[in-house]
Parts: sequence; C-alpha cells; structure tokens
Amino acid sequence: MDTHIWPITAAITGDGHLEIGGCDTVVLAAERGTPLYLLDAATFRTNCRTYKHAFARHYPGDVSVHYASKALLNTGIAQLLHAEDMALDVVSGGELWVALRAGFPAARIHLHGNAKPRAELEQALAAGIGNIVVDTLDELVLLAILTSNQAKPQSILLRIAPGVAADTHAHIQTGQADSKFGLPLGQLDAAAAILQDAPGLRLRGLHCHLGSQLFDPAPYPRAIDVLLDAAVRLRDQHGIVCDEISPGGGLGVAYTVDQAAPDIDLFAATICRAVVEGCEQRRFPLPTLVVEPGRSIVARAGVALYSVLARKHVAAETQPTTDNQQLTTTYLHIDGGMADNIRPALYGATYTALLANHANTKPDTRVHVSGRYCESGDVLLRDVLLPSAIPGDLLAVAVAGAYTLSMASNYNLVPRPALLLVEQGQTQIMQRRETYEDLVRRDSEIQ
Amino acid sequence: MDTHIWPITAAITGDGHLEIGGCDTVVLAAERGTPLYLLDAATFRTNCRTYKHAFARHYPGDVSVHYASKALLNTGIAQLLHAEDMALDVVSGGELWVALRAGFPAARIHLHGNAKPRAELEQALAAGIGNIVVDTLDELVLLAILTSNQAKPQSILLRIAPGVAADTHAHIQTGQADSKFGLPLGQLDAAAAILQDAPGLRLRGLHCHLGSQLFDPAPYPRAIDVLLDAAVRLRDQHGIVCDEISPGGGLGVAYTVDQAAPDIDLFAATICRAVVEGCEQRRFPLPTLVVEPGRSIVARAGVALYSVLARKHVAAETQPTTDNQQLTTTYLHIDGGMADNIRPALYGATYTALLANHANTKPDTRVHVSGRYCESGDVLLRDVLLPSAIPGDLLAVAVAGAYTLSMASNYNLVPRPALLLVEQGQTQIMQRRETYEDLVRRDSEIQ
Repeated sequence: MDTHIWPITAAITGDGHLEIGGCDTVVLAAERGTPLYLLDAATFRTNCRTYKHAFARHYPGDVSVHYASKALLNTGIAQLLHAEDMALDVVSGGELWVALRAGFPAARIHLHGNAKPRAELEQALAAGIGNIVVDTLDELVLLAILTSNQAKPQSILLRIAPGVAADTHAHIQTGQADSKFGLPLGQLDAAAAILQDAPGLRLRGLHCHLGSQLFDPAPYPRAIDVLLDAAVRLRDQHGIVCDEISPGGGLGVAYTVDQAAPDIDLFAATICRAVVEGCEQRRFPLPTLVVEPGRSIVARAGVALYSVLARKHVAAETQPTTDNQQLTTTYLHIDGGMADNIRPALYGATYTALLANHANTKPDTRVHVSGRYCESGDVLLRDVLLPSAIPGDLLAVAVAGAYTLSMASNYNLVPRPALLLVEQGQTQIMQRRETYEDLVRRDSEIQ
Repeated sequence: MDTHIWPITAAITGDGHLEIGGCDTVVLAAERGTPLYLLDAATFRTNCRTYKHAFARHYPGDVSVHYASKALLNTGIAQLLHAEDMALDVVSGGELWVALRAGFPAARIHLHGNAKPRAELEQALAAGIGNIVVDTLDELVLLAILTSNQAKPQSILLRIAPGVAADTHAHIQTGQADSKFGLPLGQLDAAAAILQDAPGLRLRGLHCHLGSQLFDPAPYPRAIDVLLDAAVRLRDQHGIVCDEISPGGGLGVAYTVDQAAPDIDLFAATICRAVVEGCEQRRFPLPTLVVEPGRSIVARAGVALYSVLARKHVAAETQPTTDNQQLTTTYLHIDGGMADNIRPALYGATYTALLANHANTKPDTRVHVSGRYCESGDVLLRDVLLPSAIPGDLLAVAVAGAYTLSMASNYNLVPRPALLLVEQGQTQIMQRRETYEDLVRRDSEIQ
C-alpha cells in the first residue's frame, strides 16, 4: 500500500481487508452498501493541525488558516473545522448557511466568488461575516450601496489578479491576468476611489489565488510581491493601510504514487518568508496572513468504496500486436463513477485504487475501471494494476475527499452516496445515502 | 434570432423581450428568480411527433421510439412522454422508479447500462420491464440466475459493440470496439450458450449505440449490418430468432448557428432503408425497429435564464497588439454556470445566447460569459457577441434542455435551479428551485 496516498490510519487486516480509521472497509460496505465514501477523521484533523503549526512556526505575525469549503462542506465538516479552531472560506450563500447552521462563527468566515448575487451579499452582511472578498468594481459599487447606512463598516478584501501563471490544469489555474477572477491591477486606483465614498466598507487587505493542485511554491513569492506592491500603492496614493494579506491556497496533493507528497511546511516557510521579507523591504507593517487550503486538508482523508459489478474483456483484434501476442483490454465495471467523482472526466485526473477485500494480493492485471454512467468518458481509472477481480469485489479509491462529493450530481438519476466519518473503530453518518424519494422531492406533476 | 436554435415558439415581444411558449422570459425571471430553466412544451411535443411520424413513414414494420431518459427525466417529462405515446429508455433504478411513479407503463421501458447493480436488475424484473438490455456476459449470467424460477421469461436485448467509430467527442463516442459498452462480437456465441441454459430469459434482439451528438447518419447502416449479421448468426448457429433491432440514438442538435439543424427525416430514412435492405439481403424477417433519441427530443426545448451580476474588463496589456490597438477582454459574470450546465467545461461544448431583455438589440460586444462557480474552467460561453450588458440584464442560453439539469450538481453548495414548463402563455413548475434546507437534508451532526 502506498502509504503517502491513503489516509494516515490506513492498514490491512489479517484477512487482507483495507482498514480506515480502525474500521474494516469490507464490513462497512456490506453493512451500508456501495458506493460509499469514508472520511478519516484523523487525517483531516492532522492536516488542519499541520497547517496551523507550520504557519505559526514560520510567521511572526497573526495567521488565519481558512478551509476552502468548496473542496467539501457539510454539517459535520463544519463542526470538525470549528473544533480544530480553523477559519472558513465560503463561495456562496449556501456554503455560508450550512456553516452558520452548524455553529461556525460568522466572524471567522470569508465570502469569495467572482459573481456573488445581491441576495447572498445581503445574507453575508446580515450574518456579520468576517470579510467579503470583492472581485469586481461592479461588486464594490453594489456593496458600497448595500452598506451605506450600516453602523459598523463591513470588512472587505480585494481579490487581485496578480498576473502570475502557475503550472496546473487550465481549468484550475486562476492567477493569470486573463482570468475571470480578480481585479486587474490597473483598476486598483478606481477601486480606491469607490472606497473613498463608501463609509460602510473598510478595506482590510488584498487577496489573490494562483490555482489549484500546485506542487511548486515558487509562484507564491511572486504573487506576494504583487500584493505588497499594491498595498504600498494603496497606502501611499490613497491613504488606505491594509492589515491582511492572503495569497490563497492551492497546495496540491499526491493522487498517485509517482507524485511526491507535498510539503506543507516548505509551502508555509516559502510564503511566510516572502511576506516577512517583502514587508521589510517595503517598510510595511506585518499584516495578518490568511491562507486558504481546501484540497490539501480533505482530499487524502477521503476514500471511495465501489462494488465491482461486471467485467468486459476486449480482445485487441484491431490493435497492432508484436510476436503474435494477444493483447486484451479489461474493463472493470463498478457501481459509481462520474456522478460521484467527475474529476477524471473533467480534468483527466488520475487516482490510486486497490481491491479492499484483497488488499494484500499482488496487483497483476492491468484494467480500466469504468463507471456505471452512460457515457464512454465515465472511466474512473485508466490502465491501473489491480489483482484479478470478479463481480462482488470491493474497489477502494484513495484521495477521494476533495472535489468529488462536492461536485456530485444525480446524473442517470442515481442517488448520491453516503459519507461516513471513521475514527478509532467508530463510524458516524455525515451524509446519508440519497433515496429515490429524494430524487422527486422537487418534482411536480403537470396537468 | 437564429430560429433553428431557439424553441419553435420563441418570439420577441414589442418590448424587445424574449418570449418562449407565449411567456415573457423577463417577467418569468423577475417572478421566479434566476437561474431559471424553461422547457417549451411545443418543441418537446413536436420533436416526439416528428420522430414517430418519420419512422412510421419510412419503416414498413413496427417501430418503437424510446426517449433516452438520461438527457433529462423528471415526473413531468415522463408524463409528457406518456401523453405522446412514446416509449422510454432508462439506465438506472432511479430513472425506472421516477418513470413508474409518474405512471409510465413498465412494458414500454427498456433498461440499459454497462454496470447494473443486482438490486436494480431485481427492481426491473419485479416491475415487469419491457426489455433489459444486457451489456456483459457477467450480467447475462446474473440475470439467468435471477430469472431461473420466473414463470414468464424476461425479454432481453444484447448490446453489441459493433466496432463502428462515429465522429464525435471521445467521451460520447460509444460504438468503437474498445469501449466500456457492449458485448464484443467475439462473445456472441458465449452469450448464446449461456442463454441455452437460461429458461427465464428470452433474447428478443440486438442493440448497439454509436455515440451522441452525431450529424452524419452514415455510420448507422454499417452498424445495422453488424447487428443483422449477428442476428443471422444467432439464428443459424444457435436457433435464436431475434425480432427486435435497435441501432440506438445519438442524432445531434445544432447548438450554434454554424451547425445545420439535423434532419430527423433523413436520419429515419437512412436507418429504415438499411434495416429493410439488410433484412432482404439476408432473407431475415423484418424486426421491430427501436430507436432511442434523447438530446434531439429535449435539447432545443430548453432555455436557461441567468442574471448578469458583474463585469470584468481586462486590458490586453500582455497581448500582442497591432497598430497600437487596445484590445480588451470582457467577462460577463452570471449567477449560474458549471453546476447547472457542465457541458462547456466537460466537453468544450458551445452554446448560443442573447440578452433576453434586449433581444432586438444588435450584438456588438465580444465577451466571455463566466459562471459563478469558483474555478477558471467555469466559463459558459467563450467569445460570443452580445449587446453591451450591465448587471441586472437577463441572459438566455438556447438548447439547454439536454445534459444540463440532468447532470447538475450542488457544487459550491448552490441550490439547483427551477424548471418551468411553458405552453401557450401558461407556466407549470416541473421542478421547484432547491432550497438551503434541501442542502442539509442528508446531513447529520457529528458527536
């Protein structure tokens, strides 16, 4: 088992069963059905603590570690985060509502988003949210109007498009100038002018985001320099002194054994040094540092369990063969796929899997793991080695905690899976499996 | 307005408002909020009838037109289809359950899918479903066991992988040999052998599917030849006489004005001629012809309405310019995007849009229409011409009926949109908008 890929509690029982959080996955699948998602509390908590400790160690000022809800948020996740004394980023009224309902304090939440509906801005203002991260001049104007009669000014950050391109999939690269996200630097003065006439708003600082699933921390110092230059400009030209700075999140995780485990400490050290040195060079007071990890907190904590339903063997009649070797392609059909995890179809994402009921068996068969959904693109893993599998075997997919259930659909009208929290041999339901009745809850008969 | 793109009832009011089904979209958006999906009953019904009439005209035998539920299914759609005397394809127990609950007769339903869970096969058998379309030998063996004590044999079709590659996106191309779908031709004899010992199963015929969003009917005759050759082999070698044949669905629709409206009549004529001539050549009795349109029934009936929330103008500082021309890229941020329509992010799909509150205004501004979801890939339309837009304007996206809401997620915890049926100036709610309460219906607090 590739130990840096699976949750930190992953083990193999004497029966050769994959165990997560002290729970036998074969037993859980039999009891709860599949597809089934597990969240390992220990991995999740450890990642929160690793972030907090790393930034506390490397940064001499205040640090706030905000979990990026879009990776995965539900009531239990919000509770876990609150218990770990984390802060929270949300990108919608829905995420805000779920977090508040779970008891998460509004003051520790930031609201992001390139396109925030007015009703959701009003919702955030009414809740007393910590910061609204403003993305456009249009939004700034609207917020100025909405807060014009507010007794206590609303804290805001400005999201800057820093013009720094990071090395990742185009869909999740966000820091380049020509992106839908963030205020172009050339509009900073216009933003300051709007703020002069906005008594209900207080600009606390600047934010940027470079992208997602990044392994190299090199772009962060460049982006921090851009933010600090902008902060100096706001102070010197407009008399606005920022005391928060946020270079976003985006640290990657290893999905496959060829990817190194990312180094949270190196990431923290690089960012902290850039801010400290950048402030010294500019004689700028050290701001509160806000970082926003999502995937790197929750991804590895998640494991998806699927049942193998059927096999398809394709003889490679039409492929070129060497030495009369007969090649065969094998598809292993499972009971989940692109509706619970769209990342392979959407980004070409790769994953690591094993047979959870034969976790000690040497993988010797190259297969495609095909989902149940009715399109050819629904192949969850391509060309992976597994032990020879038969219907009824249990497939476990690692690093399934981020951007899977959070993007899950009811495509083909398949109910969404359950999510169980596993910890020290105990399970708790975080989200129950969807039912057929749930599928028609919003339907009306027509006349 | 490009009349072959929008619903057949699309019109522009004296106020310059887009009207669908006799309803002013600006009024509907104001009353119901956005994002809002409309389904034009007239377009939907007309497409059903066009299919039925075209195949009835061109085929001398029995024809059954099965709507492919995966394009979009809910209670009201099932009712509409039943009223139009259509048959139905489902690909899951959920689709089957929704259809049956809406009063759709089980005998007129076929169950497809490369990976059908045992419980869903049992559900289909218990319901008395018309046909189960078997995809693998593993599934055939399982079905033989499940039906072994059944008094009345269950009708089945075998899905064949015909080895015919159609010209479309790889994700939705399904007829090639190396696909997760269908029985390789080389396994036909093995299937027949299983059927000899399966008294509970009756093989009614053969099915294949070539892919989705096809414009050229040329691959269909090739696939039909493969199916008929297989049918002849089953009769001559195994004494099994098929009386149904299904070359699937897959006819495309025009999403943009550069795409020609596909010709349902030509599609029908091509398929019918291939079956008739193929049967004559092989002295094979004319089978019942099953066709399975989804997208080409529902896509054009759908219109998505979004509010413009904000604009982002990016000066092209870093782009090469000619003659000192200052290029600007404009992003129009809307209140929907990849969670209600993932097709642009998933397949690079293109769409047609207009400003529904300025539908008579000449489009003169080139923009990217960016969704609200927190990733850069969430750009719904790229490089489209629209009239100059401001926050509060209403954007209408055409051909939004298929593979949009059916694949919708709660990404960023945004509630899914409402779907209204519009017909002769009247509206009916098919699906109400999701609420924040709906988002936590499956959540449990953890201890």
